[in-house]
Amino acid sequence: MSTVADFTERDLIARIQARLPPAPDWIAVGIGDDAAVVEPERNRLEVLSVDALVEGIHFDRRFTPPHAIGHRALAVNLSDLAAMGAAPRLALLSLALPPALRCDDFDAMVTGLAALAARYRVHVAGGNLTRSPGPLMIDITIIGSVKRRHVLTRRGARQGDQVYVSGSIGAAAAGLQTLRARTDATTELCVHRYLYPDPRMRLGLLLGRNQAATACMDLSDGLSDGIRHIAEGSGVGMTIDADALPIDHAVRERLSANGGDPVVAALTGGDDYELLFTVRPRHLGRLKTVSRHSNVPIARVGVCTSDPAVLLRRTVNGTVEHMPIPLGYSHFA
Amino acid sequence: MSTVADFTERDLIARIQARLPPAPDWIAVGIGDDAAVVEPERNRLEVLSVDALVEGIHFDRRFTPPHAIGHRALAVNLSDLAAMGAAPRLALLSLALPPALRCDDFDAMVTGLAALAARYRVHVAGGNLTRSPGPLMIDITIIGSVKRRHVLTRRGARQGDQVYVSGSIGAAAAGLQTLRARTDATTELCVHRYLYPDPRMRLGLLLGRNQAATACMDLSDGLSDGIRHIAEGSGVGMTIDADALPIDHAVRERLSANGGDPVVAALTGGDDYELLFTVRPRHLGRLKTVSRHSNVPIARVGVCTSDPAVLLRRTVNGTVEHMPIPLGYSHFA
Repeated sequence: MSTVADFTERDLIARIQARLPPAPDWIAVGIGDDAAVVEPERNRLEVLSVDALVEGIHFDRRFTPPHAIGHRALAVNLSDLAAMGAAPRLALLSLALPPALRCDDFDAMVTGLAALAARYRVHVAGGNLTRSPGPLMIDITIIGSVKRRHVLTRRGARQGDQVYVSGSIGAAAAGLQTLRARTDATTELCVHRYLYPDPRMRLGLLLGRNQAATACMDLSDGLSDGIRHIAEGSGVGMTIDADALPIDHAVRERLSANGGDPVVAALTGGDDYELLFTVRPRHLGRLKTVSRHSNVPIARVGVCTSDPAVLLRRTVNGTVEHMPIPLGYSHFA
Repeated sequence: MSTVADFTERDLIARIQARLPPAPDWIAVGIGDDAAVVEPERNRLEVLSVDALVEGIHFDRRFTPPHAIGHRALAVNLSDLAAMGAAPRLALLSLALPPALRCDDFDAMVTGLAALAARYRVHVAGGNLTRSPGPLMIDITIIGSVKRRHVLTRRGARQGDQVYVSGSIGAAAAGLQTLRARTDATTELCVHRYLYPDPRMRLGLLLGRNQAATACMDLSDGLSDGIRHIAEGSGVGMTIDADALPIDHAVRERLSANGGDPVVAALTGGDDYELLFTVRPRHLGRLKTVSRHSNVPIARVGVCTSDPAVLLRRTVNGTVEHMPIPLGYSHFA
């Protein structure tokens, strides 16, 4: 079985290029020079993000197929653009490869990435390949564009704005839990949500274009993390209604299987890649327009408050209680 | 002694920001949102490159001070822009940090990077921080701009073009050799060349603006690698004159200390970050203009040939010999 160590850098680049569509005409210089040269889009701002997936931190190769690793590496980046209201345009791909990585795994990883890139018309304009003496790492820089007045930030939420979340949450966390328990579960729905997140590109674009949201971010690190970030970025508090959270019944059951609180697990579990956003009450008409065209359910889950506290409102035995939102995932501490 | 594991991601980002200048006015959204939002420069093409430094592959922490690691991580990227004739504008910084990395080492690394960024007015517009279960990795995406007619590629060399190299070669390889032998040599000149490469930003810009070069690339992987790339990219051969190679006397001595051939060592040693470029004979006047303003020596080292062979011309015992250019560094095979 051949590994990447059997190939030169140039061979591996050729294997990547073979899986990519030809360069669009706005690429002046593509893969194979010191740098890529690109014609910027007229009358647009550029939106740039970089995200790394590191083996042992963000994925476990024992239960994450290479195809899914490639997909996720790009999906997490696309999701950041969606959260800004931007349309993706190009990506740079930096790979650090353990020499023992099998060549067919390398190919599958690139294929997973290329398939998602093709779906959202992201052109891989360049990158970098190096050996890794340890974990496999995929670092992707993504660049998109947006009109100035359509940019979505985390800073515009005001007291009284309603808080919304797209799709459903907790499924990816439940999927990861399943994968950790058994390695043969890759066909299950939750597992699929974890392995193949679908960034909310269309919803993000529509929220921006319709100026429907006052603040927006993606839920890469979970809803509780997102709530804190928008609250802090906008200088407001939030009260989230636990009963309104879009957590599927099956996900609830899965998340409480180990005796845990499924709401807390869904709030703090990451990898959902849904959008969290706030809407002025008087812009509800705009949100309806967005909702009609986005093909993704949208749930109202709370409200922005002048009090800076970030609270979860729950009904326990018929009594309404307010508790601080549980802390989410932290990369270091 | 505190390590990065004692801090949250947010703390570490704050430590980075404290070492950076304030955002320029063309940054619409800076660090702290899902992505950076940037106003593109008018009437310019964008030039994009990504390069990673991986501990154990590109540097050894036992003898590379953290300050130099930060410097080199940005320098290798700047050098790619210089080779395209582009002016740098912004960078995205993706770090994978071993939890045991000391906080003062983290700070020193960021300081080294920030100092070089300030020198070339590169704004760090965003990035990513994650833990690494293995090596320290610094992945930098750099973005610059260039007028369309000033782009330098690897593709324009023609038969009869003269081949030039800036500065001198081999010093970084000699420096690395010294560092590997003893760890207390960081004040030596060769060692400094290895630890603190100075990308040829001004020379690259001037070559582009004066349309003086038909092809250009940087020598990150050594001169022999560069020669092969330009020859192949342009569809020509090259004959390089060994006696014309700018290898300092002290470097020659150092490189032959172990009984090796200093010319081969200088050709195949990487990390020089000089520019290799080709010039049409009728454009020598343009090159003189560039040379007058660039403050870096430029040596003519060979000529492009119609025969596709890439040869080194040496005088051995009074006889002129031609040998194939030795193979340079390969990241994988």
